[in-house]
Amino acid sequence: MKLRVRLLGYESGGRNVVLIDDSLAEALDVRPLDRVLVKLGDRHAVAIVNVARGFSPSEIGLYEEVARALGASDGDEVEVEPASAPESLVYIRKKLERGRLTKSEVYSIIRDIVDGYLSDVEIAALVLSLHFLGLSVEEMLYFTEAMVETGDRLNLKRRPILDKHSLGGVPGDKTSLLVVPIIASLGYTIPKTSSRAITSAAGTADRMEVLAPVDLSLDEMREVVEKVNGCIVWGGTLRLAPADDLIIKVEYPLGVDPFFIPSILAKKLAVGSTHVVLDIPTGRGTKARTIGEARRLARDFIELAQKLGMKLEVAITYGEEPVGYAIGPALEAREALEALMGRGPPDLVDKAVSLASILLEMVGVRGAKEAAQEALRSGKAEKKMREIIEAQGGDPNVKPEDIEVGDKTFTLRADRDGYVFWISNSALATIGKAAGAPRDKGAGILLHAKLGDRVRKGEPLMTVYAESSVKLQAAEKLVEELMPIAVGRGITGRMLLEKIPAAPEKWVVIER
Amino acid sequence: MKLRVRLLGYESGGRNVVLIDDSLAEALDVRPLDRVLVKLGDRHAVAIVNVARGFSPSEIGLYEEVARALGASDGDEVEVEPASAPESLVYIRKKLERGRLTKSEVYSIIRDIVDGYLSDVEIAALVLSLHFLGLSVEEMLYFTEAMVETGDRLNLKRRPILDKHSLGGVPGDKTSLLVVPIIASLGYTIPKTSSRAITSAAGTADRMEVLAPVDLSLDEMREVVEKVNGCIVWGGTLRLAPADDLIIKVEYPLGVDPFFIPSILAKKLAVGSTHVVLDIPTGRGTKARTIGEARRLARDFIELAQKLGMKLEVAITYGEEPVGYAIGPALEAREALEALMGRGPPDLVDKAVSLASILLEMVGVRGAKEAAQEALRSGKAEKKMREIIEAQGGDPNVKPEDIEVGDKTFTLRADRDGYVFWISNSALATIGKAAGAPRDKGAGILLHAKLGDRVRKGEPLMTVYAESSVKLQAAEKLVEELMPIAVGRGITGRMLLEKIPAAPEKWVVIER
Repeated sequence: MKLRVRLLGYESGGRNVVLIDDSLAEALDVRPLDRVLVKLGDRHAVAIVNVARGFSPSEIGLYEEVARALGASDGDEVEVEPASAPESLVYIRKKLERGRLTKSEVYSIIRDIVDGYLSDVEIAALVLSLHFLGLSVEEMLYFTEAMVETGDRLNLKRRPILDKHSLGGVPGDKTSLLVVPIIASLGYTIPKTSSRAITSAAGTADRMEVLAPVDLSLDEMREVVEKVNGCIVWGGTLRLAPADDLIIKVEYPLGVDPFFIPSILAKKLAVGSTHVVLDIPTGRGTKARTIGEARRLARDFIELAQKLGMKLEVAITYGEEPVGYAIGPALEAREALEALMGRGPPDLVDKAVSLASILLEMVGVRGAKEAAQEALRSGKAEKKMREIIEAQGGDPNVKPEDIEVGDKTFTLRADRDGYVFWISNSALATIGKAAGAPRDKGAGILLHAKLGDRVRKGEPLMTVYAESSVKLQAAEKLVEELMPIAVGRGITGRMLLEKIPAAPEKWVVIER
Repeated sequence: MKLRVRLLGYESGGRNVVLIDDSLAEALDVRPLDRVLVKLGDRHAVAIVNVARGFSPSEIGLYEEVARALGASDGDEVEVEPASAPESLVYIRKKLERGRLTKSEVYSIIRDIVDGYLSDVEIAALVLSLHFLGLSVEEMLYFTEAMVETGDRLNLKRRPILDKHSLGGVPGDKTSLLVVPIIASLGYTIPKTSSRAITSAAGTADRMEVLAPVDLSLDEMREVVEKVNGCIVWGGTLRLAPADDLIIKVEYPLGVDPFFIPSILAKKLAVGSTHVVLDIPTGRGTKARTIGEARRLARDFIELAQKLGMKLEVAITYGEEPVGYAIGPALEAREALEALMGRGPPDLVDKAVSLASILLEMVGVRGAKEAAQEALRSGKAEKKMREIIEAQGGDPNVKPEDIEVGDKTFTLRADRDGYVFWISNSALATIGKAAGAPRDKGAGILLHAKLGDRVRKGEPLMTVYAESSVKLQAAEKLVEELMPIAVGRGITGRMLLEKIPAAPEKWVVIER
């Protein structure tokens, strides 16, 4: 059937989609989500059919993805006919019938996701099948490798390549901003990619962005790492494992994430990491609520990493309260910089040194812990951080007090004498977001006391920072509603609860 | 945030969707499939966000559903803010976590599907959860009732109301075109709704449409039934259980149908059926491949029907070859009319009489089988069919030979003497569709021999009819490729294998 092109002028989220009227769909004998072959001159494209009642019945609406593939202009005449669904859909249906996917089937699915040949509903079918049925280790391996091979890679001519990742869920966790310069200052390579906040008040990319640009291309990232051994950049536009980004789009509204392990390891594999320390914070609101859950997760990560030829060790860490005192991009960047300058809060320093020393041990450094501590104490790590900041395009001479924070503040004070016995991570995240973080870089929260600290009535417990009065008021209201911090009795604790090495015979709790 | 309206001018498949540019989504802090509240004057609408990179960053694109709800015009200024997801999404997530849904949760989900508040991905999550986890009888009951209550209903002031449904999968099954007039001619009410073909060469609505219009409104349907006791109309536009139509849209590309039983019974409940005979054809290519599977399905249908206050009996029928000789709308309408005039093929007549007599027995008719046979023999059923045809707006005096069939034909002949021992239902469906059915009403297949028939070399086995030479050639090619009928040795058989009554103590095979 011959149809006139109408360019819609915008994209369809990376999918090859066309719009046709319902009468036209009937005439073509296609239903929503069926496929059509669209031919223009010697070019052709297979596209997913969206049926839009009320669209012109003599036109086909092209989203930009298909328009580009065809080189189509408004009013062009194209030939349109029904096409069969991609073979990968047969494999998704196989999974729906509880079949096991082979390596080539997994590649076919991931390839078609990246190329935009599968609809959101079909990707959702894959995601939900794996949510209900689980993945075998082989399937995890295939998905991870396929995600990496269908994306771009950072090819560094260096070995080893170290990396650090946290499963998150703890507000104020700016540990990467210390671990990366510690490792890099000791001569090791650590090309760290990170994410922006989705449900929290700040992601590592948001924090680093206060100090330097993080939106680097892969080439720029390579240059930085080759020059100063490390970087802290945003992974969002790098096309490392791009299938993962498309899968997350359907996972997010459903609150499921069966690709959790493959997607993390795919990002590590794509930058060439050979040695990875994985931080699994444990506590309310984190991925692993108990140490038992954390251990199970750790084993799955270690097993898959081994199959991928990557050495991975896990640090199970204490995640019941924020790391350090600051929450929010600017406040955290300031706290991290102060920690690098020798004035860091003990839990932040302890966590950074613990993770860094696990990495250093993995590559054979003797006295790894002392080396990490010394890098901090001597100012080597700070110097390295300033080199990284400069290499990424920031101001290497930045002082903590230069970093601007919101000038609208509200302070919550203790209503009695006692100990801080309750801090709600999720309430702090909600309040930090209400105050404007992470978009307003200066918005956030500064704690004045942490679990177990003795406070007197009237002493400050926390201060909320905002850039706008309206947002401060919203945050203030939430502070009253949510009671994020409470005074009574308390506990104290070291950060590292347990270290899980790659070799299973070493499953011991470290005495420290 | 204030935005200008851009009317897109077409619908989004019954969903409340708006389009915004990705930069705008970031500024609003919403991600694809999040919700926004759109306000215009004193009207407002909650809509699902589609992110379209390259769309104007100061505009919001409204599909017709949302435009209508707001009464919006191009260029109107609307206030847009993030909104929380509908509560029904919480229940879908509960099901994703393997929870059991309560009655009010099911209603909330179905209501939001009908009102367009859930995205395809979210509906897919529901469908796939139920595909993997199954539905409890209570959940089936809730879904069925919710589907009916969120749609229109046929309110007839008559009791009993009889109905017939087939699970399909057998080509040429025009049994409804006999059962409806038999039942109606005996004074009982039978408001039959039917579907068009999706994967077959003809649905009951396609067949009936050769004789009379089938695209009636609910009021027109009521008038017809009140006048002549029965009808055979297309259910597609009636809004009986409309949630089902939206659910099928996502089930179809995935090839799963967990709502199979609720959706069938919802359509029956919506027309007020009190007594239903369900035909479960058994054989290759049907829903129930074995009698064991058919019995399991039968029990599920009977149990749910009982809870719905509906009496349902099941007929397990022979489904290994087409019913009668004709496949395709016009050929089948002709064969049905001839059967009503006393010249029907024995298997078609046997199946129609069997199903009709089960229905008649259910409402207490003695000598039900004889009554059904007599209705056919005496011409009462034919007369009633002509009344129905007239009431629906067709020609009551239509003769079988008036019905036009395709004038392009191709005949397959036996290549040896012997018996027909193999007929492929799926190959016949494929060939019939290639010939143009069901869109080309005159396209189809006429068999000249059936399983067990003795044929001599050179005698015709089947003739393909088409309205266009191109389609005939395509069908002819498929005949050669697929070998839909083969000659060797054969069997003969009656149509009804087994009847399953509503009361479980009567699980016996009927000796006939």
